[in-house]
Amino acid sequence: MRIVVLAGGIGGARFLRGLKRAVPDADITVIGNTGDDIHLFGLKVCPDLDTVMYTLGGGIDEEQGWGRAEETFHVKEELAAYGVGPEWFGLGDRDFATHIVRTQMLNAGFPLSAVTEALCDRWQPGVRLIPMSDDRIETHVAVTLPGGDGGDGSAAGSGERKAVHFQEYWVRLRASVPAEAIVPVGAEQAKPAPGVLEAIAAADVILFPPSNPVVSIGTILAVPGIREAIADAGVPVVGLSPIVGDAPVRGMADKVLAAVGVESTAAAVAEHYGSGLLDGWLVDTVDAGTVERVEAAGIRCRAVPLMMTDVDAAARMAQEALALAEEVRGA
Amino acid sequence: MRIVVLAGGIGGARFLRGLKRAVPDADITVIGNTGDDIHLFGLKVCPDLDTVMYTLGGGIDEEQGWGRAEETFHVKEELAAYGVGPEWFGLGDRDFATHIVRTQMLNAGFPLSAVTEALCDRWQPGVRLIPMSDDRIETHVAVTLPGGDGGDGSAAGSGERKAVHFQEYWVRLRASVPAEAIVPVGAEQAKPAPGVLEAIAAADVILFPPSNPVVSIGTILAVPGIREAIADAGVPVVGLSPIVGDAPVRGMADKVLAAVGVESTAAAVAEHYGSGLLDGWLVDTVDAGTVERVEAAGIRCRAVPLMMTDVDAAARMAQEALALAEEVRGA
Repeated sequence: MRIVVLAGGIGGARFLRGLKRAVPDADITVIGNTGDDIHLFGLKVCPDLDTVMYTLGGGIDEEQGWGRAEETFHVKEELAAYGVGPEWFGLGDRDFATHIVRTQMLNAGFPLSAVTEALCDRWQPGVRLIPMSDDRIETHVAVTLPGGDGGDGSAAGSGERKAVHFQEYWVRLRASVPAEAIVPVGAEQAKPAPGVLEAIAAADVILFPPSNPVVSIGTILAVPGIREAIADAGVPVVGLSPIVGDAPVRGMADKVLAAVGVESTAAAVAEHYGSGLLDGWLVDTVDAGTVERVEAAGIRCRAVPLMMTDVDAAARMAQEALALAEEVRGA
Repeated sequence: MRIVVLAGGIGGARFLRGLKRAVPDADITVIGNTGDDIHLFGLKVCPDLDTVMYTLGGGIDEEQGWGRAEETFHVKEELAAYGVGPEWFGLGDRDFATHIVRTQMLNAGFPLSAVTEALCDRWQPGVRLIPMSDDRIETHVAVTLPGGDGGDGSAAGSGERKAVHFQEYWVRLRASVPAEAIVPVGAEQAKPAPGVLEAIAAADVILFPPSNPVVSIGTILAVPGIREAIADAGVPVVGLSPIVGDAPVRGMADKVLAAVGVESTAAAVAEHYGSGLLDGWLVDTVDAGTVERVEAAGIRCRAVPLMMTDVDAAARMAQEALALAEEVRGA
């Protein structure tokens, strides 16, 4: 069975670990979000790709969900001693090595997809991990910073409207101000990375893990050609809600959903994807009452436990998603 | 008193620490060797500049003489796990930060001299540290590698003649094969960094610490204009022998002296510099018998203890060098 999965960071990575356990013989291609990539200290950092790679390769900090296990932070401490920031982004020493190798290969002319493949040679994630695009795309968030909070010495007062990198919004500001708009800068001009459209066209099933529907899966879908390829693939497309009982399972998905005018409910996210894209949708058992609403939107829906408390729970969720896909296919 | 010191790595750095103790109020400009700079992992590494900066700034690994105190090696371990080398060069995590900052600034267009000044803003070495040149100069060593030792699958046999980077000769090969020639690649086209010639012209005294006369001080003198400026400065130029009793005080200076046809003795090194450049020369007390030979070459010479066992010993050596300079000036 050939499965294509669109993945963001922690949620996508943990779901993929469950999927691998559920169907160990499946041929899994992961299309990874690169919209939250950032250049730091002259190095190219790809948080979502690395979270998938480290999680599936056994190198992740389990508790934190991102970064490397047994990590130290000496490089970062020293950079701070030089007055070189940003200090709010937590790059560990082991993690730095990944960015050094990646940057060296990119500077040598290799596209990100080839670099990602080379990094995965070490990690052996057991899936084919492809960045959504080799072109640079950066998700920016329009915010109004309270006066004087911009760190730029601006006068206190009515606030300053500016666009910040998604990482600055998410990590530094912790989504503490409303996201007024979310723009995947560069997406319009970007092309899917080699293998992306081919994998979608060859898939038997396409899954949307409980990743952020705006800044993770939404960004992947913003690369021209990917949304259309999925809609035209003619195979079941099944997603899992990242919202359980009106709140994100983790992270701050509600903050960015508001920016695109979508309420923070499992049903609203399904409607946001729409029946033109999505064939099936899993909501948590606490949201069983919303199944009818989703099905009314033309999307087959089931309520099952959606809390990824461990790998077994994630594997059961993957099984449910695949079962729903077969139901869609048989319909 | 304005003192200009030409410095390589460990020997130069330790001498400078003594000099600062000996004459705390002196205005000291250090012209640092950059011939052993190397690009590793896409980063610009300047071993000699950093050894001076860390030693005078209190960050050096005292026992080793290079690299940072309380160092860890996680980045390097991870690079090796990716199969990315060279593994023979010991870059620690804290040290990596220096190279990351330097590379980021160089890529932003700052010359090495400006970058070095910025790094010294943190370390406050108490001297003005200027690289000999902002242009790229790399010392290469011509060697004949035993057959099959080239690491390139070449057949065993009569050996392969090739040029290796000085660091590869020094660190990887540990000078285990004869250096047949030593070439500061790029030196001929290089210009002294801003401030170098000005510092020399304004100096009251110029010192050559017990640094390697070929690959440290010799490389600095190979930058067109520097040797001439020193010879023309009209102030005492005093050196300290890095050879004590026919052997280098540390390192493998004898290996590279052979390449330039100079015997490994204190007197021969003085003659190698020559009376056109050098006015005074300190040899160790064990080499007292050689004073007459050096003076016969037109260079004033004294025999004093030259083992830098601690900072006080280095300070006494610096005092002796300055005393000899005054003797030269009064003559």
